[in-house]
Amino acid sequence: MALIARTPEPPYVAVIFTSIRATAGDEPYDEAGYAATAQRMEELAHEQPGYLGIESARNPGGLGITVSYWATERDAVAWKAVAEHLVAQRLGRERWYSQYRTRVASVARDYGA
Amino acid sequence: MALIARTPEPPYVAVIFTSIRATAGDEPYDEAGYAATAQRMEELAHEQPGYLGIESARNPGGLGITVSYWATERDAVAWKAVAEHLVAQRLGRERWYSQYRTRVASVARDYGA
Repeated sequence: MALIARTPEPPYVAVIFTSIRATAGDEPYDEAGYAATAQRMEELAHEQPGYLGIESARNPGGLGITVSYWATERDAVAWKAVAEHLVAQRLGRERWYSQYRTRVASVARDYGA
Repeated sequence: MALIARTPEPPYVAVIFTSIRATAGDEPYDEAGYAATAQRMEELAHEQPGYLGIESARNPGGLGITVSYWATERDAVAWKAVAEHLVAQRLGRERWYSQYRTRVASVARDYGA
């Protein structure tokens, strides 16, 4: 089961990716390909320099939010440019998402329990 | 259905709230109270100065992510201190969440389609 990312003391970088899936009635839809790619991207992110963690949630059939955490802005930019990730981004734009937004943010403070 | 927040040009502030629900076997659980309070907090946030939008997703029975967007850090801090929100935060800590983390971040850039 997905857990809350164990990020270090701030500052660090958060990339907030919010998306709405294309609906099952749309063509091409490719649910299996989507799930496999999403999992592969999490594994691939984990191998990148500066990776700190990832959190992901999706309402059934609706909006999804994935937040990946990085040591520096440079690390976040480098992850966006990884070749296999570029292919996944293209498929996301062309096939899987009807709408999305990516926000790059600097985390100044955090707290929790 | 929840939509992607229509935030303005950066910079603005994102408050990333990641949580894991206490499980249904735990006492007290109070699913109805949780859902009503979550909806009320979204409505109340909407009325606050500097509110820009909110996005929320939860994996069934698992991790949830809510991101609220604010014009300034001061607006985000003021929202945390709203009396009715303080009550909800206490219930969250005591009853609804087994674990949570709040991260306050400054959005420097965004893009999407």
